Amino acid sequence: MTFSVTSKGVYAIATTPFLPDGSIDKVSLDRLTDFYQESGCTGITILGIMGEAPKLEPEESRAIIQQVVGRSKIPVIVGVSAPGLAAMRSLARSAMDMGAAGVMIAPTPSLRTDEQIVNYFGQAVEAVGDDVPWVLQDYPLTLSVVMSVGVVAKIIANHPSCLMLKHEDWPGLEKISKLRALQKAGELRPFSILCGNGGMFLDFEPERGADGAMTGYGFPDMLVELVDLFAQGKREEAHDLFDAHLPLIRYEQQLGIGLAVRKHVLMRRGVIASDAQRKPGMALSAPARAEVDYLLARLGRRDKRAAV
Amino acid sequence: MTFSVTSKGVYAIATTPFLPDGSIDKVSLDRLTDFYQESGCTGITILGIMGEAPKLEPEESRAIIQQVVGRSKIPVIVGVSAPGLAAMRSLARSAMDMGAAGVMIAPTPSLRTDEQIVNYFGQAVEAVGDDVPWVLQDYPLTLSVVMSVGVVAKIIANHPSCLMLKHEDWPGLEKISKLRALQKAGELRPFSILCGNGGMFLDFEPERGADGAMTGYGFPDMLVELVDLFAQGKREEAHDLFDAHLPLIRYEQQLGIGLAVRKHVLMRRGVIASDAQRKPGMALSAPARAEVDYLLARLGRRDKRAAV
Amino acid sequence: MTFSVTSKGVYAIATTPFLPDGSIDKVSLDRLTDFYQESGCTGITILGIMGEAPKLEPEESRAIIQQVVGRSKIPVIVGVSAPGLAAMRSLARSAMDMGAAGVMIAPTPSLRTDEQIVNYFGQAVEAVGDDVPWVLQDYPLTLSVVMSVGVVAKIIANHPSCLMLKHEDWPGLEKISKLRALQKAGELRPFSILCGNGGMFLDFEPERGADGAMTGYGFPDMLVELVDLFAQGKREEAHDLFDAHLPLIRYEQQLGIGLAVRKHVLMRRGVIASDAQRKPGMALSAPARAEVDYLLARLGRRDKRAAV
Amino acid sequence: MTFSVTSKGVYAIATTPFLPDGSIDKVSLDRLTDFYQESGCTGITILGIMGEAPKLEPEESRAIIQQVVGRSKIPVIVGVSAPGLAAMRSLARSAMDMGAAGVMIAPTPSLRTDEQIVNYFGQAVEAVGDDVPWVLQDYPLTLSVVMSVGVVAKIIANHPSCLMLKHEDWPGLEKISKLRALQKAGELRPFSILCGNGGMFLDFEPERGADGAMTGYGFPDMLVELVDLFAQGKREEAHDLFDAHLPLIRYEQQLGIGLAVRKHVLMRRGVIASDAQRKPGMALSAPARAEVDYLLARLGRRDKRAAV
Repeated sequence: MTFSVTSKGVYAIATTPFLPDGSIDKVSLDRLTDFYQESGCTGITILGIMGEAPKLEPEESRAIIQQVVGRSKIPVIVGVSAPGLAAMRSLARSAMDMGAAGVMIAPTPSLRTDEQIVNYFGQAVEAVGDDVPWVLQDYPLTLSVVMSVGVVAKIIANHPSCLMLKHEDWPGLEKISKLRALQKAGELRPFSILCGNGGMFLDFEPERGADGAMTGYGFPDMLVELVDLFAQGKREEAHDLFDAHLPLIRYEQQLGIGLAVRKHVLMRRGVIASDAQRKPGMALSAPARAEVDYLLARLGRRDKRAAV
Repeated sequence: MTFSVTSKGVYAIATTPFLPDGSIDKVSLDRLTDFYQESGCTGITILGIMGEAPKLEPEESRAIIQQVVGRSKIPVIVGVSAPGLAAMRSLARSAMDMGAAGVMIAPTPSLRTDEQIVNYFGQAVEAVGDDVPWVLQDYPLTLSVVMSVGVVAKIIANHPSCLMLKHEDWPGLEKISKLRALQKAGELRPFSILCGNGGMFLDFEPERGADGAMTGYGFPDMLVELVDLFAQGKREEAHDLFDAHLPLIRYEQQLGIGLAVRKHVLMRRGVIASDAQRKPGMALSAPARAEVDYLLARLGRRDKRAAV
Repeated sequence: MTFSVTSKGVYAIATTPFLPDGSIDKVSLDRLTDFYQESGCTGITILGIMGEAPKLEPEESRAIIQQVVGRSKIPVIVGVSAPGLAAMRSLARSAMDMGAAGVMIAPTPSLRTDEQIVNYFGQAVEAVGDDVPWVLQDYPLTLSVVMSVGVVAKIIANHPSCLMLKHEDWPGLEKISKLRALQKAGELRPFSILCGNGGMFLDFEPERGADGAMTGYGFPDMLVELVDLFAQGKREEAHDLFDAHLPLIRYEQQLGIGLAVRKHVLMRRGVIASDAQRKPGMALSAPARAEVDYLLARLGRRDKRAAV
Repeated sequence: MTFSVTSKGVYAIATTPFLPDGSIDKVSLDRLTDFYQESGCTGITILGIMGEAPKLEPEESRAIIQQVVGRSKIPVIVGVSAPGLAAMRSLARSAMDMGAAGVMIAPTPSLRTDEQIVNYFGQAVEAVGDDVPWVLQDYPLTLSVVMSVGVVAKIIANHPSCLMLKHEDWPGLEKISKLRALQKAGELRPFSILCGNGGMFLDFEPERGADGAMTGYGFPDMLVELVDLFAQGKREEAHDLFDAHLPLIRYEQQLGIGLAVRKHVLMRRGVIASDAQRKPGMALSAPARAEVDYLLARLGRRDKRAAV
């Protein structure tokens, strides 16, 4: 299974399910893989920032890739961002050997100038091999690396193996418009844009030129429906659906506890057995859990998927 | 007019209205002052980050203070954060002489350790005078200074003249709970907490212990109603109202263009004559303006205030 | 008096002398102005970061400009970096009206991408007026804005009024070489490069293409002699002189107490009456003062200027 | 072999020697290990930031530990800082099993508040096991985590297994004095302080209370002699020696090319076969190499060790 510059729909950012004792919950991982497919997702991204990748030992990362790739019938992309290029190459090669569709690479946090950023991706592509399809992750809020439209365009132009942009600049609507304008003007080749930020702006991103979402919101089935409604031109229905979910989407956008919210929702939906995180992790306080449950209850009245 | 440790409700973060040629629009400033009062706000905060304060010359800042304080029948707080303590003292003294209720002080962005932060506020209070009532601004997302619960508590304990916390840490719900728990345990004296972040979490902040909001969302009248509904224990009605506004509140939370959205809404509501910003400022693109108008139209069906 | 793209030698970064009560020491300021000229400096830069500019009120800044410009027989450059363009324009205009030779502008700390940096200087030049000669300050260590060679070249190309680069990137020797290579290749017009960083690399910068130094080390007379030795091709003598001063130059390169060291040396040399700083300032501890005095004593055996 | 709270002298920060093709140069690694011991070092620290640790694959890191520990007759400390605690624990356990004396842990760059920093080391110690002796690395310039004296003291108080502080705050002389004052006052238990920053302040650090140096300057034999001179109270001789080396020490303090300078010097001294770095690495330009060689030539006239 592969992905391409015309990939559309929803790529789920997979969480890594743990048991309360901190070991990987393989049963839940299978269930999660199935759940994403049954939700209509067109791909799965594993070992991203929200997949607690840095908390895994190398052999654990490889075991997770093996399991998800072995089970999934949709393309699997593997996050390989690492402090050093050797570790990145090693993980990317393993992933591709095991049957991953491609890898995702974020800029290393120390980069500042346009030239440094462009050069870094040159080195990264050389490291993983220019035959490995990859996703460029643009996430300044967490990585503190700001890539201008020109820099993104240059990276895409330099590397035919870059097939997709995981767009999560914030604010970022204009960036999508400008990148698509460059393409329309014939100055940039085609590439897929899937949006992150938990879906916070997914009520406008498709109209700006995004092909869908790559995010880990606990209702990937709703994201699939939303992207589909936009594809059918059903704007009002799309906004109605989005607005119903926005209170929860917004609540999840709390750095630190966002992952806890996400796991709690997936547990409430019966997908994973436990919302445990590996240390260091931030658990939901009792009031926070009650708030999420309250939002789920309100949402359940408008969307039966949330009536859990 | 004064404010106190028991101040409640909504303090509007005032924008500074400009004419398209960049000069201050005094007519709109009067109208804006009146609008905030008529909206039920219990206070007005001027010359904050969203008030384009750094773009003003000292004499302009003073003229704005004079005009707003002279017209307002509710307390006016003046943002006096400045790179140097001399400028801070000078502006604070002028403001108080003109009748301001107090000042607002944010930590200077270079601060890192708890000790540095606590010491800075010691110097700031010495500079403005310990007789000047002030608001502590906690806004790590923009200022990159992270104040723990312990640091906030220490600053409040050290300075009886600190009457209020403008809370806009993100995520920040637990911070409110922990500060109020310290108070309940008798380890911290009373102080008011008003929340910022454009109101993004105002559907839960009052229940956590906040006394209201201090933010510049274009519908301060809705914020007032929301805080009031919570005060009356009308939780569901409060959430219904909040959820209707959330798409717009969220859209405004785009660093850079947030102020443009806010001014556009105030212009659409007839409060200010122009949405012009002083340079450097980021204008709304045509698609962005259309998106805001679309959100206003959708909102107008649920809240007549937005039917503009 | 003016400066130009062929300016050479040493521009002293002037400290602002205060009396122990925090008021400006006008007598010392005159003495300091004379001292810089008698030391052989070709220019004076006032109100820079090390001149405690942010601690001054606007009227004090203007008084200092007036006094130094009125007394100096060499060109005076005024630092006008400010959080807002209105304050920058206002200060720049005043300075030029009073007879300053030009202004110095640093990038505002929030800038990240090449495009943002280039645009910022476009707005700054528009604000101060494109007839005002200016110095571009490149100081990433303190300002956290990293300007690549390409960005510096673009700013210089865009703005004929930019006559000089205050170079204090660290490491920065290659940057000088690359900028001069661009000029040699005919891709960049002439401009002066004076180096900062307290002189820490002034034993190699002239050979890389620098025209001299712009820094506030307490022995400007030594800096003048050093640049002169390089101009005469006396490399070994230059290094002997530099190496004798390096322990003190290095000691001064301690962020926070560097200014205290500098003022202490100037006081020991009889130039300023007090080493007082305005708050917030970091004083020398007793051991630190003893260390500086010890370094001065050792230096005094090799350079009579230090036998104070 | 172990280290303790009374460890003194010089711990060499070992570079990792590579062959020009990027593979690890095992012959040079043996020679380097011997060289550090013959230079009089009392310990060796491997896999630190300057050891290009992030560029190594996990199995390579383990092979290097095995080789150095197997050969060294002085204690070997292993840098185990990693983005995740699982990788840290795994590397630490391997290192200890192979006979390392202890590990070195730096704070993860995202930490800001005192509480976050203190908690992080709590989690790290829990991860590696509280029976593993460790060195606390305090390096704000590169890691952007600022630890106050109080925080360092608290970490030391919390964890009996923390035996040593690698001190490379800058400026940092006062920090040493204050930590030692806390000890003298009986408020802090004994611990060793070895200083980094390439030795830039090693002419004063021993008198402030440091027990020596932990740094990778290409003349560890000189560092050993220097620390020894201070131990004997030969202050003037110590400064004479230090001042002779300062131009080169200073030149090495250029972030990015510092490692290239260090490797070049070790190659010139015949210790390692090649100055190659793994990608991404910054090579010395021709002028930079000439500058280092010039500084070596000048130094060679005052210190025969540099006559290479």
